[in-house]
Amino acid sequence: MRLTQYFLPVLKENPKEAQIVSHRLMLRAGMIQQSSAGIYSWLPMGLKVLSKIEQIVREEQNRSGAFEIKMPTIQPAELWQESGRYDDYGLEMLRIKDRHDRDMLYGPTNEEQVTDICRTHIKSYRALPINLYHIQWKFRDEVRPRFGVMRGREFYMKDAYSFDLTAEGARIAYNKMFVSYLKTFARLGLTAIPMEADTGPIGGDLSHEFIILADTGESGVYFHKDWQEKDMVADISYGDDLQPVVDQFTQLYARTDETHDANTCPVDEADLMMRRGIEVGHIFYFGTKYSAAMGASVSSPDGEMTDLHMGSYGIGVSRLVGAIIEASHDDGGIIWPASVSPFDAGIVNLKPGHSETDKVTDMIYQAAIKAGRDVLLDDSTDSAGAKLARMDLIGLPWQIIAGPRSTERGVVELKCRKTGEVVEHSPEDAAAALLAHLAQKVSQKVS
Amino acid sequence: MRLTQYFLPVLKENPKEAQIVSHRLMLRAGMIQQSSAGIYSWLPMGLKVLSKIEQIVREEQNRSGAFEIKMPTIQPAELWQESGRYDDYGLEMLRIKDRHDRDMLYGPTNEEQVTDICRTHIKSYRALPINLYHIQWKFRDEVRPRFGVMRGREFYMKDAYSFDLTAEGARIAYNKMFVSYLKTFARLGLTAIPMEADTGPIGGDLSHEFIILADTGESGVYFHKDWQEKDMVADISYGDDLQPVVDQFTQLYARTDETHDANTCPVDEADLMMRRGIEVGHIFYFGTKYSAAMGASVSSPDGEMTDLHMGSYGIGVSRLVGAIIEASHDDGGIIWPASVSPFDAGIVNLKPGHSETDKVTDMIYQAAIKAGRDVLLDDSTDSAGAKLARMDLIGLPWQIIAGPRSTERGVVELKCRKTGEVVEHSPEDAAAALLAHLAQKVSQKVS
Repeated sequence: MRLTQYFLPVLKENPKEAQIVSHRLMLRAGMIQQSSAGIYSWLPMGLKVLSKIEQIVREEQNRSGAFEIKMPTIQPAELWQESGRYDDYGLEMLRIKDRHDRDMLYGPTNEEQVTDICRTHIKSYRALPINLYHIQWKFRDEVRPRFGVMRGREFYMKDAYSFDLTAEGARIAYNKMFVSYLKTFARLGLTAIPMEADTGPIGGDLSHEFIILADTGESGVYFHKDWQEKDMVADISYGDDLQPVVDQFTQLYARTDETHDANTCPVDEADLMMRRGIEVGHIFYFGTKYSAAMGASVSSPDGEMTDLHMGSYGIGVSRLVGAIIEASHDDGGIIWPASVSPFDAGIVNLKPGHSETDKVTDMIYQAAIKAGRDVLLDDSTDSAGAKLARMDLIGLPWQIIAGPRSTERGVVELKCRKTGEVVEHSPEDAAAALLAHLAQKVSQKVS
Repeated sequence: MRLTQYFLPVLKENPKEAQIVSHRLMLRAGMIQQSSAGIYSWLPMGLKVLSKIEQIVREEQNRSGAFEIKMPTIQPAELWQESGRYDDYGLEMLRIKDRHDRDMLYGPTNEEQVTDICRTHIKSYRALPINLYHIQWKFRDEVRPRFGVMRGREFYMKDAYSFDLTAEGARIAYNKMFVSYLKTFARLGLTAIPMEADTGPIGGDLSHEFIILADTGESGVYFHKDWQEKDMVADISYGDDLQPVVDQFTQLYARTDETHDANTCPVDEADLMMRRGIEVGHIFYFGTKYSAAMGASVSSPDGEMTDLHMGSYGIGVSRLVGAIIEASHDDGGIIWPASVSPFDAGIVNLKPGHSETDKVTDMIYQAAIKAGRDVLLDDSTDSAGAKLARMDLIGLPWQIIAGPRSTERGVVELKCRKTGEVVEHSPEDAAAALLAHLAQKVSQKVS
C-alpha cells in the first residue's frame, strides 16, 4: 500500500482526552475515532489489527474443538428474567424498548442466549460435550467510560460456553480453554499469567483471569517470583490430558488485588512480585447455575434428566489492541508483535522524485509484494523527520529507510523497530534480509 | 468434520412460523435459531455460509480500492439531528437512552457516521477520492418482521461510502461499485440484474437496485427479454473506464414495480419479461446532501471550500443467505453454489460398523482433508433414508454415498446435488473425481 493512496489520518498533537498511552497512540496513529463516549469507529489500520487478533483467537478456539456461532447483539429481556439476572444487572445493561414496547437489551454477555440454544437442540448426553463460541459486539454502559478501547462501552469480545454432563467433563472443557488461552496469548506476542479469581456475579466455583503485565495496568497483581512462562505451550495437543499443564501453570501463587490478601498469602514477602497488570481473558466454571434456572437438561446414560454443567470463557478482542500497546511501546510509539502488525513492514522513501531513491524503494516494495507481504510505502512529500517519526509511531516491526544520501552510496537502512538497531545493506540484500526476517515464524514476545 | 461430533440441529418437521422456503430450509437445516421476532442466532453451519458471503463481498470491495473500517452499532442522536434524519426516520429506528439519559440509536445505516469521520480527517482534495466501507450489524425495527433473515430486524450489511470532489468523480466511484457488485454476485453464483431505482428517502439522483430472480421474490420486476448477463464481468479491471460497462448493463429496460409504469414503459409488451425478484444490493449517488448539512467540505485546487460529493452502496450480507436459497433449491432442500457452500462436499456412510463401508468412507474423507477440502462425513447411526434426506436438505454440491451393497460390489456413488446425477466409481476413482470437481474454479450459476 502506498501511503498517499491510503487512509491513515495520523495526528500530530497528543489528544487531550487520552489519559493512557494506548488510547493516545491509537488516536495519534489514526487507528480509531471516537463516535461518542466509550464508543469508537475503527479506521483502516486499527481494523487490520483488530481483525488479526480476532483471527488468531478464532483459530485457537477452533483447534480446541469449539464451534463458532453468532448470537445477535439485541436480546429479549425474557431470557434474562428466566435466569434472574435482568433485575440483578445494574445500569451497565443497556435496556431498550422496541416499537411494540417490548423489553430488549444490548447483550453485555451471552450465558442466557446460548443456554436457550442448547436447551432447544440438545436433549441427550450423546450430543455432549459441546463448546459454542462467538465473536460479537457487546455493550456495557460504563458510568465513566475511559482509557479508549480498554474500557469502552461498545466492545468486541470472544465468549465461549461449554456444556457437559458432569462436573468432571466440565473440568476437561475448562482445561481446554485454559490451554487455548495460553496458546492464543503466546501467538499474540503476550505473556499472560493465569491468576486465581473470584467468580463474581457470574457465579460458580472455579475461575482464572489471564493478566498481562504493564506498568499502566489497571490492577495490582501479586505472584511468586519463580513464575515464568513455560515454553512448551505451542506443542501441547488438545487431545492430551491437560490437567498436568494447568497444574503446572497454576502451582505458584498468582492473584490480582481483588483476591490477594497479604495476611493469608502463603508466599514470603521476599518471594512475592508486585506489579501492575491488565486483564485480557477470564474463564469460569459455574456448574448448573444457568441450566437449572432455565431448564437446560439432557437425558443421562441412566435415563435421568440432568442439568448441564457449564463454563464460560471470555477474551476481550478490542481490549487486546490497547493492552498489546500498553505492554509494547516506547517514547516513539507503538511496537507491534509481528503476528498482529497492521503491515508486515514499512518502507520510507525520504525523497520522492529523487530517481535513485524512487527506483530502490520501488524495487523493494515490489519484491515484498511478490513475496506475498503486506507493506506500507511512505511515498509522501512530508519532511524526512515527519516520515521517520510517523513510521516509528505506527509501530511496524521492520522499516526500510532510503534517501538520496544512502542510495547514492549504494545502500539503504534496515531498521528493527523494537531494538532500534539499524543495518546498512545494498538494496538487494536489504530486500532479502527483510523477507528473511518476515519469514521467521517465531513469535516475538513483548512482555 | 464428522457429523457425530458437529452441532447440526436438523429439524424433521417443517416449522410452522416459516412462510417462505428459505426461512423454512434455514431452520430445518439447523442454520439459524430465532432469538426474538426478526432476530436470529446463526448456528455453526449458517455462520459458515454467512462468513463465506462476507469474505467474497470484502474481497471485491478491497479490489475496487475501497478501505474497510468498522463503525459502531450504537450512534449518538446528535449526528442524525445534524443531517435532519433523526426526526424523519420513523419507528424503524431503534431509539435508545443510555444511563445518562442521552439519546442514542442502533444504526440502520451509516451516512452520518461516515460523514463525521471524513469531515474530521479529510481537509483537502488531495486525499480524494476515497471509499470507506464496513460490514456491520444494523437494526431496523420492522413493524412486522418476517421471512426469516430476508426481512429481519437485526441484519448484517456491507455499506460503502464514496467521497469525491466533483460529480464527475462521484460517477467514477459509482461505476466502480456497480462493477464490483456485478463481480460479487457472479462469484456468489447469482445473476443480479441492475434496475433503475428511485433514490427514496436517502436522497440523490442516481440509483440502481440489484435484483436476483426468484419465484418467491418480494417485488415484481420488469425487464426487456433481451436482457442477459454479460459473461465478461470477471475480466473487467477496476482501472479501466467503466462507463461503457455500466452503459452496456443498463441500456435495456429493467425496473421493479416501484418505478415501472405500464403507460410510460418504452418496451413493447411482447418484449417485456415480468418476473419476481429479490433485492440484494442497492447503490446511490446523492451528491452533497449529507456533506452540505454536516459541513464535510475540502479545499479544492482553486483554494475554495467545496462540499464533498457522496454515494452509498449497500449489500445485504445476511439477506443474501436467504436470497441464494430462494434462487437455488428443490423439493429436497438447499442447493448451494460451490463458493458459499458450508462444506465442499458430504460423505454418507450408510452403515457405520460395516467394515468395508467404514474403510472406504474414511479413505475418501482423509483424501479430501489431505487435499485441503472441508467435508462433512455422516457417520451417524440414523436410517439410510434419513441420512440421504438430510444430505440433500443441507445442499452440499457433491455427495459420496457408500453402503454395504455398493462397497461389496467395489463401488461408491458420486452424486451431484444440483442435477441429481449419480455415477458409480471405484472408491479411489470417486475420490479423484470429487477432488477434480472441487478444483473447478468456474462458479456455478443458480439463477
